Amino acid sequence: MTAATLYGPVADDLALVEATLARVKDVEYAPLARMLAHVLGAEGKRLRPALALLGGRAGTYDLTNLVPLAASIELLHSATLVHDDVIDKADRRRGRETANNLFGNAASVMLGDFMFAHAANLIASTGSVRLVQLFSRTIMSMATGELDQDLSAFDHNKGIRDYFTRIGGKTASLLATACEGGAILGECPEPWVEALRDYGFNLGMAFQIMDDILDFTGTEEVMGKPVGSDLMEGTLTLPSLLLMERSRSDNPVRRLFAAKRNRGQRLAEALAAIYASDVLAESESVARDFIQRALDALTPLPADAARIALADLAEYVVTRTS
Amino acid sequence: MTAATLYGPVADDLALVEATLARVKDVEYAPLARMLAHVLGAEGKRLRPALALLGGRAGTYDLTNLVPLAASIELLHSATLVHDDVIDKADRRRGRETANNLFGNAASVMLGDFMFAHAANLIASTGSVRLVQLFSRTIMSMATGELDQDLSAFDHNKGIRDYFTRIGGKTASLLATACEGGAILGECPEPWVEALRDYGFNLGMAFQIMDDILDFTGTEEVMGKPVGSDLMEGTLTLPSLLLMERSRSDNPVRRLFAAKRNRGQRLAEALAAIYASDVLAESESVARDFIQRALDALTPLPADAARIALADLAEYVVTRTS
Repeated sequence: MTAATLYGPVADDLALVEATLARVKDVEYAPLARMLAHVLGAEGKRLRPALALLGGRAGTYDLTNLVPLAASIELLHSATLVHDDVIDKADRRRGRETANNLFGNAASVMLGDFMFAHAANLIASTGSVRLVQLFSRTIMSMATGELDQDLSAFDHNKGIRDYFTRIGGKTASLLATACEGGAILGECPEPWVEALRDYGFNLGMAFQIMDDILDFTGTEEVMGKPVGSDLMEGTLTLPSLLLMERSRSDNPVRRLFAAKRNRGQRLAEALAAIYASDVLAESESVARDFIQRALDALTPLPADAARIALADLAEYVVTRTS
Repeated sequence: MTAATLYGPVADDLALVEATLARVKDVEYAPLARMLAHVLGAEGKRLRPALALLGGRAGTYDLTNLVPLAASIELLHSATLVHDDVIDKADRRRGRETANNLFGNAASVMLGDFMFAHAANLIASTGSVRLVQLFSRTIMSMATGELDQDLSAFDHNKGIRDYFTRIGGKTASLLATACEGGAILGECPEPWVEALRDYGFNLGMAFQIMDDILDFTGTEEVMGKPVGSDLMEGTLTLPSLLLMERSRSDNPVRRLFAAKRNRGQRLAEALAAIYASDVLAESESVARDFIQRALDALTPLPADAARIALADLAEYVVTRTS
């Protein structure tokens, strides 16, 4: 699948979003310009900007404000990755060195702050106060979700409900906002705005669950991080939570979290238990449930090329391998 | 000087700002609520909110939007302190434990992000897109200033011009925005808006220079950090920059920056050189020049109680001892 087939009627317009993102690097202070060039240089899937444009397609499609919105959402996403990598002490992300690894933690915290602010500035340029409020509430949700992930590391008392709350905040809220923001700028009727937000939120839930599954099933080469990274960092995701539910008193995840030594061996045992069980298949089935909800949410929208693209994207999310 | 005498006609209204700030702590996620209660629990001077209200006094004084603006500016200021303390690895600030010391770096980065977003939400609640743009540009300036401070640590090739650019970004821009934001909400004529921004910026420059002087002359008890902290962390401020200018080839600051061992002894030598010279007096005279510019900027404004309070504040900034 390429962006052209995936993103249908908005694929070509993503070039305008790229151009706006490229201008973000044009800052006077040279060290900052270099840092921005690095973190914005990675070729992403641009899923979030595509969702913003597709949301706009449901109404009056005016790129004047949709492009700044789409660029703002991607910039906000990149800003959160910069701060997440500081928090996770990550050296690499998808094969590229992280900002914290190249420029240090202190500079990366400020780099992320600058990017958040620039994203806010882009959103404000749309002239919509409603979008600014949506945008700020989304960052609050994302920060709360990430905070919870950090604070609950190695805490095996957290359950699937906590997991849903957490990924709702850290991932699904931004995909929901991308779709909703586009619909607001497109001046869609309120039920469509709500439908698109609903679609984006459920898509985001499925997207994060698939990401968490890929942490167990992807290859290090494609994912850019070792298999089982989440568990090694103490983060319980759906597969490991399902495994915990099945054997509450004694299981290999609990032993890994308690281990002070031989953590590699304990991880291998936890991975083996996960592969031997049906928790990966069940996790995928939960992701498919969210996708079904996303597809159902689209019902009120006109059956046009944009809606077909949104439905295709939902299918893609549960079949992707990277 | 108490707030009541300093902030004149807006002193009483600061209670409304406090009430808005208190509501920021009301979040569902309990660990976040605890963190917010700690960082917002410190009793500050509330200089920035007072400036926002005084800016509004120059025009139509409507607290409906001025209070959210003033609270937003203070929250933004607190958010930058949370991230600055992460960057500086500071244990204490003004006698209280820092967030990074209590909750760790990772949680503090997210806490700061949440606070930035909440501040943006408060600004958006004023309904003014112009304010949101001003707000976002201010964060960009502040992040760039802090980034420069981090990246130029222990770099003795930086000069006074770089210092002015840095403190203009990290400190003066927010004081300027407080005054300008109030004036915009008060619907002041544009020359008054510009005058208030100009006042705030120059006040901010003087404020930071005095802060940097107090790092040499204040007591650890009052300042909550050891004398000479800036130099120890490799940050050149006006007094040390003036000393560098006077003896370019060999001086105790350069030796401190180059020292791998006996840094305490090297610091004592640098401090002794600074006290023996006139650089502290000259720095204060530079701060007074900025204050004069701030006072001059007030000329177009009506000579009322608000203007008198702004002028008094300017005098206070160059006489404060903590």
